Amino acid sequence: MKRGKFITFEGGEGAGKSTQAKRLAERLERTGISVIVTREPGGTPVGEDVRELIMRDHPTDPVTELLLFAAARAEHVTSVIRPALDDGTWVISDRFMDSTRVYQGKLYGLEPEFIAQLERFTVAPDYPDLTLILDLPASAGIERAQLRGTLSRYDAERIETHETLREGFLEIADAEPLRCVLIDASLTVSSVETAVWQAVSSHLLAEAD
Amino acid sequence: MKRGKFITFEGGEGAGKSTQAKRLAERLERTGISVIVTREPGGTPVGEDVRELIMRDHPTDPVTELLLFAAARAEHVTSVIRPALDDGTWVISDRFMDSTRVYQGKLYGLEPEFIAQLERFTVAPDYPDLTLILDLPASAGIERAQLRGTLSRYDAERIETHETLREGFLEIADAEPLRCVLIDASLTVSSVETAVWQAVSSHLLAEAD
Repeated sequence: MKRGKFITFEGGEGAGKSTQAKRLAERLERTGISVIVTREPGGTPVGEDVRELIMRDHPTDPVTELLLFAAARAEHVTSVIRPALDDGTWVISDRFMDSTRVYQGKLYGLEPEFIAQLERFTVAPDYPDLTLILDLPASAGIERAQLRGTLSRYDAERIETHETLREGFLEIADAEPLRCVLIDASLTVSSVETAVWQAVSSHLLAEAD
Repeated sequence: MKRGKFITFEGGEGAGKSTQAKRLAERLERTGISVIVTREPGGTPVGEDVRELIMRDHPTDPVTELLLFAAARAEHVTSVIRPALDDGTWVISDRFMDSTRVYQGKLYGLEPEFIAQLERFTVAPDYPDLTLILDLPASAGIERAQLRGTLSRYDAERIETHETLREGFLEIADAEPLRCVLIDASLTVSSVETAVWQAVSSHLLAEAD
């Protein structure tokens, strides 16, 4: 059994991650690849409950939130992602570890070394094979999220916050060019879809043949 | 304002931790010391929700449980323990970090180094000033827990498991004799109370005068 590939979508709110994840899954399925789409936080009962818990209890310590997300990720990898990959299924996740690096690391200033160690305990050795970073100016992302009425607690924050998050994702793309592909998410949905498909084709499909 | 002291009770199920925590608090209050009693997991909305989440969702990965407990602890320290200590109030916690070392480390085999690093991020610099380890042969602890009808998921496990947990607590007492006092919990409640009071008096009260 050939091991599945693991693809993650990252980027700010309103960048189109969910839509693109779904479209990519459909395209992969049309080529005969078995694929599942999942998301973080969420993807498992623990993950969904962690998401609700954070909304309900508003942790006072950013470390609490970091550890809750890390717990949800451990469960997600162990019970969903790893078994699927082992089974030859491809996995697409709407947000994954880079969101933690950016929100908890870049934005809240938690130690990158601690975050990296949490990744080693929750993700390794199943780091993403390919990460598609949907990049959008902060103002455009906020506008889109407002239009669809899905302003999360992060959306409600100031524009400077969104710019910081965007910078965080750009820094990751810059630091890990082999894993990450930066995609201009200000284009139309179908243009972004094309760019995503090109990235997947060149990075993973040739190799998968 | 003189900083409060932080005391934790540790040990297996049925060792009398809750009862002794309550009695110690009453004695301290009678000497004019302001004190709160708290517990883990729990002690905050996040902690109570984590406790429920674990019961409901049965995480499949021991790392998930470790991180959920660590998240609850971060919140507990930040929002309850540290503010109380800062305020001159003494804090007594029914279970704390040693339970994680023993259950997740000794019993489930998770890396002690990772657990220690989590402690540094969730507890430091507010490590307990004194830890009272209530020691009881495993068979006696199970019997007591059965009598009161409070068999937790850990109680339901085999006697070898309880012996492993007991060994874990004994090892901690042995490794950190300045912080930990081992107390024979097979004695009567009032004898244990006396032993607890002697430990607190000699370790903390002389110093607090």
